[in-house]
Amino acid sequence: MNYYGNKVSKLIEELTKLPTIGGKSAQRLAFYIINMPKENALSLANSIIDARENIKYCPICCNITDSDSCIICSNPKRDDSLIMVVEEPKDMVAYEKTKEYKGLYHILHGAISPMQDITAQDIKIKELLNRLKDDKVKEVIIATNPKIEGEATALYIARLIKPLGIKVSRIAHGVPVGGDLEYVDDVTLSRALQGRQPL
Amino acid sequence: MNYYGNKVSKLIEELTKLPTIGGKSAQRLAFYIINMPKENALSLANSIIDARENIKYCPICCNITDSDSCIICSNPKRDDSLIMVVEEPKDMVAYEKTKEYKGLYHILHGAISPMQDITAQDIKIKELLNRLKDDKVKEVIIATNPKIEGEATALYIARLIKPLGIKVSRIAHGVPVGGDLEYVDDVTLSRALQGRQPL
Repeated sequence: MNYYGNKVSKLIEELTKLPTIGGKSAQRLAFYIINMPKENALSLANSIIDARENIKYCPICCNITDSDSCIICSNPKRDDSLIMVVEEPKDMVAYEKTKEYKGLYHILHGAISPMQDITAQDIKIKELLNRLKDDKVKEVIIATNPKIEGEATALYIARLIKPLGIKVSRIAHGVPVGGDLEYVDDVTLSRALQGRQPL
Repeated sequence: MNYYGNKVSKLIEELTKLPTIGGKSAQRLAFYIINMPKENALSLANSIIDARENIKYCPICCNITDSDSCIICSNPKRDDSLIMVVEEPKDMVAYEKTKEYKGLYHILHGAISPMQDITAQDIKIKELLNRLKDDKVKEVIIATNPKIEGEATALYIARLIKPLGIKVSRIAHGVPVGGDLEYVDDVTLSRALQGRQPL
């Protein structure tokens, strides 16, 4: 039933489409939004439009960016002989927060998962192999999530890279098996980086 | 640190301002939004603008509406001799869902709370008294939340209305004391309506 008029109902309906937002949360958020100062509500709406219309993938590492190359690839101080391969941008952020890693990243935007019909062609593996064509890269560190899909993706990538004569390593299983990289504490992430093993 | 460029960071920052949305949730929502089909993201943004710019209070009951009077006040089948006074629009929705109440509502938009510096002048009590000037209204049912603020508001309103010779009642304490009307089940809400007591 539409008790508040169409515009508020439409807003509630749109908010309900977001992940982790149910009916009651959407209603609460909608009331909060319509009671916000007008400029704040417009600022929220515009940031959605602006982000959605202007973001793109970094042509080098496939990170999300709004400029020509991302903040990490465009930093000359980073060690370009090291590439850490992660599933999602948030995993890159998790490693950046440890302040231990000074190399570059490669964001796959997913992991191989036959159950979800995600094949090697659906994630950014081709882009990773293109980056290995020049001789700069000495080591590829695979930091996909320690789950079945992440492990499978790690083995798949290792098999492709080894013939190129580049060292391939995997972050140590200091990270809890079955977990999500995003939620691991900084110390564990650091340990996992230090204890990395050749594949 | 701004790892994804300014536009995504701005979106995350704006989302963090919403209630119940912390840093990680905001990041997850932001990634979901920038990966949405463009028309869905624009539809979400536009529904925020549209709701914020076009909603107003119903001039009769102070419910939220985008037309001249709200869906309940403009329904000729509702019993206009009964007014149920609630704190928030969501409380009205909770009672509407029971399908037991056929009268009109009055939305106070808050409750008297000296602790939060909310006085009788800050909520829609004056508007309620104006509605009682014609002879149509026979009973005012006070359904503010069963907390200290709601009880105080109920007593305050009852004291103002009794001299007008209109019956004033309070929903029964079938609703759990200390709770929020929004989360009470339909049966309990119905019992509370049936067992209402004169104040």
